[in-house]
Amino acid sequence: MSTSEFSPENASIREKMEALVRRKQKQIIESLESLDDGYRFKFDSWERPNNGGGGLSSVIENGKTFEKGGVNISVVYGSLPPKAIESMRANHKNLENPSQGQEGVKFFACGLSMVIHPLNPHVPTTHLNYRYFETWNPDGTPQTWWFGGGADLTPYYLYEEDAKLFHQTHKDTLDKFDTKLYPEWKQWCDKYFWIPHRNENRGVGGIFFDDFDTKDPNEVLNIVESLFDAWIHSYTTIVSRRKDLPYTEKQKQWQYVRRGRYVEFNLVYDRGTKFGLQTPGSRIESILMSLPANVSWIYNHSPEEGSEEAKLERIFKNPIEWAV
Amino acid sequence: MSTSEFSPENASIREKMEALVRRKQKQIIESLESLDDGYRFKFDSWERPNNGGGGLSSVIENGKTFEKGGVNISVVYGSLPPKAIESMRANHKNLENPSQGQEGVKFFACGLSMVIHPLNPHVPTTHLNYRYFETWNPDGTPQTWWFGGGADLTPYYLYEEDAKLFHQTHKDTLDKFDTKLYPEWKQWCDKYFWIPHRNENRGVGGIFFDDFDTKDPNEVLNIVESLFDAWIHSYTTIVSRRKDLPYTEKQKQWQYVRRGRYVEFNLVYDRGTKFGLQTPGSRIESILMSLPANVSWIYNHSPEEGSEEAKLERIFKNPIEWAV
Repeated sequence: MSTSEFSPENASIREKMEALVRRKQKQIIESLESLDDGYRFKFDSWERPNNGGGGLSSVIENGKTFEKGGVNISVVYGSLPPKAIESMRANHKNLENPSQGQEGVKFFACGLSMVIHPLNPHVPTTHLNYRYFETWNPDGTPQTWWFGGGADLTPYYLYEEDAKLFHQTHKDTLDKFDTKLYPEWKQWCDKYFWIPHRNENRGVGGIFFDDFDTKDPNEVLNIVESLFDAWIHSYTTIVSRRKDLPYTEKQKQWQYVRRGRYVEFNLVYDRGTKFGLQTPGSRIESILMSLPANVSWIYNHSPEEGSEEAKLERIFKNPIEWAV
Repeated sequence: MSTSEFSPENASIREKMEALVRRKQKQIIESLESLDDGYRFKFDSWERPNNGGGGLSSVIENGKTFEKGGVNISVVYGSLPPKAIESMRANHKNLENPSQGQEGVKFFACGLSMVIHPLNPHVPTTHLNYRYFETWNPDGTPQTWWFGGGADLTPYYLYEEDAKLFHQTHKDTLDKFDTKLYPEWKQWCDKYFWIPHRNENRGVGGIFFDDFDTKDPNEVLNIVESLFDAWIHSYTTIVSRRKDLPYTEKQKQWQYVRRGRYVEFNLVYDRGTKFGLQTPGSRIESILMSLPANVSWIYNHSPEEGSEEAKLERIFKNPIEWAV
């Protein structure tokens, strides 16, 4: 399929979202590079074999501030096979299965996805992803569209003012559009990043939403753009506060152990990762870029009672409200 | 449920299998400790909360020869909820769903499961698991039983004579009982440990079987006992050959990267791990003991053409015959 087969409806939304993620990729990279003197992201552009679209991956490795990080954008389109539709329908209520005999559903997807693992255990790991998805029938009539995404924080040591800043900035941003959004999306985030087999959250949360189509798409684009800015402001502030704090080998080891939980979540539960790994022709290196550089699993590891590490674990097991 | 509710049929098989795995756990630990001077396994016994049975985990960490290893036995019994039966039926053809209104299927499971990650990258990681499973109806009449398991090798550097020894010892052992077994179980192993998203195998294979009930259970016990011995003989020989070879930091780094693939397989595909993580009340630390102590993910890592590392990857992508 070529881009000329796109439905004319929502053409400007597709174009605006693509322009937005390209602009924000550039801006995020600049803001992170300014915190990691002399270290630069490397770029890798890729195309989908036998399918439409591609992406631009950017990676930083072995930096002074960032041990590993990836900021990816992708713009992909084509046909969704019936099996993929069936598995997506569980989470996307408006996605229709094609009538029998039809060849599948045409789709367009565009988004930015990012995970940053800092070197210093006092700086939290962060994840962000905003995406736009659209489907239409073979005759070009539109079927459905939605936005999804979110941003969250995974600290190794808990600085309450950092968690508060991250949540408050996102809440203030969303409140300008609709005060119902933050409470709903904060709760969704806590639910989504829950690791059942560990009985704990991946981190201190943030926001998460999916299947969002109940506002004018141009307004959603504004919300998404503001959320990008909320992340840039709050995360770069947190990195600046913590990146030069001294740390011990033991604290670094704790970071490696906690990163094991990050890997467990991403490989066992994360919908995007699972969907990517199951999709033939997807770019594995861009999907698994989210995994940290160095990870440890220690048998039956448990922090000492009363320690900073134990305090963090308690918060992960009982998510709380950070914003007012 | 208490053990008195077990079906009288196969009682001696249950007892013999339990005695076998207890004896072999002891023997395996002794043989591994003899290769790691001064380092000892630590034991942890556990019981299933609100359910029948428990296990004995044993772990070695930070040894001179073994960076991390676990040798676990478990003997568990109780009722399988209908949902668990449904998910198990995909792989176990003889498992019947209870009639409507019945409370589930009573089961007994007993096995030894082990993963050993050596320190020296010239020594391969190994995995072994042998288990017996039995179900019966609420009235005590037997429903089904089977044996399953296998053993396989995951080298970081390929010593062909090691892969040959491991496979040949297992083939010679099985050939004494039935020459059809090794070819079938070798192929099953290659298929089971395939990592689709990497388009490669987890290692150089070994044997794998499941749902095995087509021989007298007393004969299967003999086969399983001989397979334990085949593993002990071949793996300890390989460790002795390689454990004192010098290695570089770069070779150690390659081991960490390859271990990332091990984690990817175990968390994304391994049936036992997935089943364990989904089962409420299962002992997570015993299940995830299989994960290596230290692991790395490097973006787009690929060995240099013509290198030893590239040779290994080629073999993983195209499994070959090792035994004659």
